Amino acid sequence: MIKVALLGHGVVGTGVVEVIKNKAEQLFEQTGEHIEVKSILVRHDYDVDYKEKFVYSFDEIVNDEEISIVVEAIGGTDPAYNYVKSSLLAGKSVVTSNKELVAKHGFELMNIAEEKNINFIFEAAVGGAIPVIHGVRNCLKANNVHSIAGILNGTTNYILTKMIDEKQSFDIALKAAQELGYAEADPSADVDGIDTCRKICILADIIYGNHILPENVHTEGIRNVRIEDVDILKMVGGAIKLLGVAKAVDDDKMFIMTAPHVVFNQGILYAANDVFNAAQLETDNAGLMAFYGRGAGSLPTASAVVNDIVECVCADGTLYPAWGQEKPELVADYKEVPMQFYVNVAENAEKVEEIFPTAEIIYIKETTAFITEKITENQLTEKLTGFTVNSVLRVL
Amino acid sequence: MIKVALLGHGVVGTGVVEVIKNKAEQLFEQTGEHIEVKSILVRHDYDVDYKEKFVYSFDEIVNDEEISIVVEAIGGTDPAYNYVKSSLLAGKSVVTSNKELVAKHGFELMNIAEEKNINFIFEAAVGGAIPVIHGVRNCLKANNVHSIAGILNGTTNYILTKMIDEKQSFDIALKAAQELGYAEADPSADVDGIDTCRKICILADIIYGNHILPENVHTEGIRNVRIEDVDILKMVGGAIKLLGVAKAVDDDKMFIMTAPHVVFNQGILYAANDVFNAAQLETDNAGLMAFYGRGAGSLPTASAVVNDIVECVCADGTLYPAWGQEKPELVADYKEVPMQFYVNVAENAEKVEEIFPTAEIIYIKETTAFITEKITENQLTEKLTGFTVNSVLRVL
Repeated sequence: MIKVALLGHGVVGTGVVEVIKNKAEQLFEQTGEHIEVKSILVRHDYDVDYKEKFVYSFDEIVNDEEISIVVEAIGGTDPAYNYVKSSLLAGKSVVTSNKELVAKHGFELMNIAEEKNINFIFEAAVGGAIPVIHGVRNCLKANNVHSIAGILNGTTNYILTKMIDEKQSFDIALKAAQELGYAEADPSADVDGIDTCRKICILADIIYGNHILPENVHTEGIRNVRIEDVDILKMVGGAIKLLGVAKAVDDDKMFIMTAPHVVFNQGILYAANDVFNAAQLETDNAGLMAFYGRGAGSLPTASAVVNDIVECVCADGTLYPAWGQEKPELVADYKEVPMQFYVNVAENAEKVEEIFPTAEIIYIKETTAFITEKITENQLTEKLTGFTVNSVLRVL
Repeated sequence: MIKVALLGHGVVGTGVVEVIKNKAEQLFEQTGEHIEVKSILVRHDYDVDYKEKFVYSFDEIVNDEEISIVVEAIGGTDPAYNYVKSSLLAGKSVVTSNKELVAKHGFELMNIAEEKNINFIFEAAVGGAIPVIHGVRNCLKANNVHSIAGILNGTTNYILTKMIDEKQSFDIALKAAQELGYAEADPSADVDGIDTCRKICILADIIYGNHILPENVHTEGIRNVRIEDVDILKMVGGAIKLLGVAKAVDDDKMFIMTAPHVVFNQGILYAANDVFNAAQLETDNAGLMAFYGRGAGSLPTASAVVNDIVECVCADGTLYPAWGQEKPELVADYKEVPMQFYVNVAENAEKVEEIFPTAEIIYIKETTAFITEKITENQLTEKLTGFTVNSVLRVL
């Protein structure tokens, strides 16, 4: 019998209780063990038929020697960080879907787990039900990952899909998302790219082996995405998506960023709409590869959490090596990495052609829109001196 | 030191040699073992710088106690089946990309591996570099898979993409695929759906737990896909894709089929073009999920094979339970499972509306095309009595 404790009883926590209960037999077949939620740390009562599991003090969990796995489903870092650290130090493996916690404290927590020969795993922290972390860790043993680009936040993808399909402005689309419960009353963690940034950091940590703090990663959200650009791009088969991107660049540095990007209508990132998430990897041997699915929601998230519980149960010691310590100097200056840009200016095509002779002009009307060749942002800024710039977007 | 033998030195075999060589250090880091190709079974010499590894008799491999893993890269079943069986009986784990072998003999070979507490694994047999088998086996522990639908053959997907994007007829597109080396001189295994059928059988074997022989699965290829239907569907955001599909149906039976299907422009199957493969799963907890990537090619296939080698090296005994014995009665009569159909008839819309009052008519011109509500194929055939039918396609 494996006894699990749950910290928190919100959307994720209730899902985990449900999945463990509904899949009891299947989980036993797969692990040879009965998995039971023994204790659930709550702040107040809920009217459920398993009230007897509620505990109100973390001490009751951390001091309970029967409990071998702790699921952290509180969110945020206070008190989650202390609880997780204490659980690991007490020799209990921890599973979490908390991207903020992993992005901030993953290095330390994974190292504690490694020292204790237990596990700190977090599939659900990136891409919800999509096994992208598992895939990167277990299915690319014979590959280097050149780059990763992901739609990692369902709320913003829903908003952008509404803007694309129904020509809604950002404000209207955000309101629709809030009414459906996809966006919170204070939507800034989603729409300002903070959530996506945490997730691309975690993926980059795993792929490139060093902890990257979100605060060192340039992050732009979607508040300034203009419906005019959405429409112009749609005419040429392009869509604006909020992406977390990371890639190795020449000199042992990493380019990593969160920002709205233009993607064109080949491939999975273009096709991933509504609340769906997708992550696309470029690798040396396997080539282009993508994972797609539900990035949030009670049961999808719980599905990934319970899968991690199974990994912990079946593991003989630490499964995945901790990544290395943070080195801010590993992050390349994003303004010095060449890429293509979509630019919309008030000037006419003649002026654009004069300054950007190699650009592809895609729209000439009240404004001029064009796609540059690969240049750095610093070069772009210099070339745009004297232009009235309506918008600049990166092209994947 | 782990010594591997390779059976065959074609597209896959040479890729495996290359990947093991290029990733030597990375593989050592991941396994703690040096992995070396010791012997390569060939029928004749090749001018390569590792000629000393060539052997000309299988006995030299099966009797070599140093060799613990055999990679079968011959293809077909004769002599691959005997070689693989003998290798397993000799206590050597086997990795293969041979879908024909797995689809025909997977039950027996997995059971031998299980008895010997070794592994017979075959990620590359389905979807090439895409870790769909690994994902289904390892990442859905808390899920039931309701259905799976996959574009599992790159050759036919390339041909269909040409038909859709460039309005080429099947014959012209096939010729282009042959000129690029995507299709063989005798393309029937691909274009008649045989290859896709083997792959959907393997996925269904894993998901539903019983061996299904390809000969019991209704299989249609793409030779009869008409450019007229491609064009009509394109106008309404639909595309024709060759899919392997499998789903559990009510009474413990499984619906499984290979046929061209209509998919609409939401989602990954619609977006998977050219030689790319994609597999889409519907699950109870994780919801909709998809995997996408390169389904063939020397390095992508080798990437999956070498990943399997790493799994074998790190495994402590058999990793995945063998599926159950074949029971032909598990396969449902495909003509009795309700689904939507695309139908193109010579008759006018009035006649169609009379017989199919609930159908959605999508094209009225020299022919009439419509999408039915969910009905069985037997019901459809009856309703179509008296019509001049140009084409019938299933809708996913």
